[in-house]
Amino acid sequence: MYSESELIRRIRERFGTIRAGIGIGDDAAVVDLPPGFSTVLCSDLLAEGTHFRRTTHPAPAVAYKAIAVNVSDVGAMGAIPTHFLMSLTVGPDTAPDWIDGFLDGVAQACAAFDVELVGGDSASSDRIFVDIAMIGRVEQGAAVRRNGARIGDAIYVTGALGGSGLGLSLLESGLGPGTAHDAIRRHLYPEPRQRVGRKLAGAATAMIDLSDGLSTDLSRILSESGVSARIEADRIPRFEGATLDQALHSGEDYELLITAGTLDPECDGVPITAIGEIVDGPPGRILMTEGGIEQVLEPRGWEHFG
Amino acid sequence: MYSESELIRRIRERFGTIRAGIGIGDDAAVVDLPPGFSTVLCSDLLAEGTHFRRTTHPAPAVAYKAIAVNVSDVGAMGAIPTHFLMSLTVGPDTAPDWIDGFLDGVAQACAAFDVELVGGDSASSDRIFVDIAMIGRVEQGAAVRRNGARIGDAIYVTGALGGSGLGLSLLESGLGPGTAHDAIRRHLYPEPRQRVGRKLAGAATAMIDLSDGLSTDLSRILSESGVSARIEADRIPRFEGATLDQALHSGEDYELLITAGTLDPECDGVPITAIGEIVDGPPGRILMTEGGIEQVLEPRGWEHFG
Repeated sequence: MYSESELIRRIRERFGTIRAGIGIGDDAAVVDLPPGFSTVLCSDLLAEGTHFRRTTHPAPAVAYKAIAVNVSDVGAMGAIPTHFLMSLTVGPDTAPDWIDGFLDGVAQACAAFDVELVGGDSASSDRIFVDIAMIGRVEQGAAVRRNGARIGDAIYVTGALGGSGLGLSLLESGLGPGTAHDAIRRHLYPEPRQRVGRKLAGAATAMIDLSDGLSTDLSRILSESGVSARIEADRIPRFEGATLDQALHSGEDYELLITAGTLDPECDGVPITAIGEIVDGPPGRILMTEGGIEQVLEPRGWEHFG
Repeated sequence: MYSESELIRRIRERFGTIRAGIGIGDDAAVVDLPPGFSTVLCSDLLAEGTHFRRTTHPAPAVAYKAIAVNVSDVGAMGAIPTHFLMSLTVGPDTAPDWIDGFLDGVAQACAAFDVELVGGDSASSDRIFVDIAMIGRVEQGAAVRRNGARIGDAIYVTGALGGSGLGLSLLESGLGPGTAHDAIRRHLYPEPRQRVGRKLAGAATAMIDLSDGLSTDLSRILSESGVSARIEADRIPRFEGATLDQALHSGEDYELLITAGTLDPECDGVPITAIGEIVDGPPGRILMTEGGIEQVLEPRGWEHFG
């Protein structure tokens, strides 16, 4: 077990220098935005036992995922993630190897997403918690919200859905986290679509990242926008091996859900698939056609609490 | 126990509207800075069992303190705190009353410090964790760092030291958190000096907030600045009833430690006391005169970890 000062020293050695501004080591970090940009802010917490287990989730994946999910949130605003703060609790039973692996994951994510660690906090606890607060930038007035979907818009998703849920179920069935399986990799190392979000920001009327499952996240856009949706089960792109249920309800895919007029079928090398359209109706309602029958699709994505 | 969606609904009802920008309820928040300002960022975590106990720390105080300590950090850069993210874990055994009290504390802190809640995350856990990420603004290039102390500068502290340590020891000795005692109040509801930090930013060569104790935080300024210090025990302003040991080593006073030329003895109604001066010598070394004898003062402030 590292002492707090050893942990901070290691973090500072690896992440203490940033390209421009004041990073780790003072009361607070200071970064500049170019003129005409707004600051974008979000945070996401991973709690041991709720979001990951030490037995199934390797330390680098925990760090990588904690950062990736925040990159995804910033990207879903059509913004560019740039800097983050990291709060970490580890306990006396946390081996130095685990922490070193965790910091490797932080470094991998910094490189993959071109973001920089600028501060945070640490404390001792018998549970591991990782809380990342990410900031980014977007041109003033250009952020893409959840409340702009209009009747007649098409509904699109990036990539393929259900992979993370499939990966988690494979891990829970006993496959090791090192197993070479695309779905396990997708669960442990999500691929946020922040570059796609950025490129489609001008065309999108509403956008959200799929963190809690399509049924839940689509109903959020619909509720915020005061509209209903019609989707077709057969058009929903599924991750190889994923069930329709996983594609609809399992969370943590970190693909984007976008409403817009006509979009190209690909962006930044990622498939863009139309799965339905925005229609008039009760705010939040999803009608899904499956096997020729149309039924209301209830949101039943992830709830971590209670 | 509230469900996650109930908790989020309550937070959104109370804190969902901000003065300018996009607050809670989208993938990320969006706020604007005036031209010529930099973004200031910091986070601080409070962990149950390490930083507070449910028996001695009322829920409103936990929230208030978590926000106050971040306000203090931003103030110690000479910056103005404006917005924050809040991540919270609570468990099945956390009563709705506790959470309501906690949200009351959030509202009190928002009013006291003129800051706005713009986002965050929540999760279930058998331990309560509160992580606040605060942002603020400072004129470009004007942030006051820890590394600017120069030989010949005087060393100042705001207010009086040791009150929080005294308050904690009173709580631990069995006095209830509702006891009308200034030191208990100081421990539970710190008074960050962000307005003083802001006003003295132009005069200060270095500044830090006293979160881990004078001996530790002064040595940080000295190490970063590559200098030593001479201080006098008799000049250190003590909170009423606090011992010298508490004034030197107990943390969480959230007063400011400032190096500068000559400062007025008061700022924003807060006493400013010179306790010594910056001298040439090994980086980080503190020499303290007490009872006519000068000795090296070792940092032994708070270490939460390990």
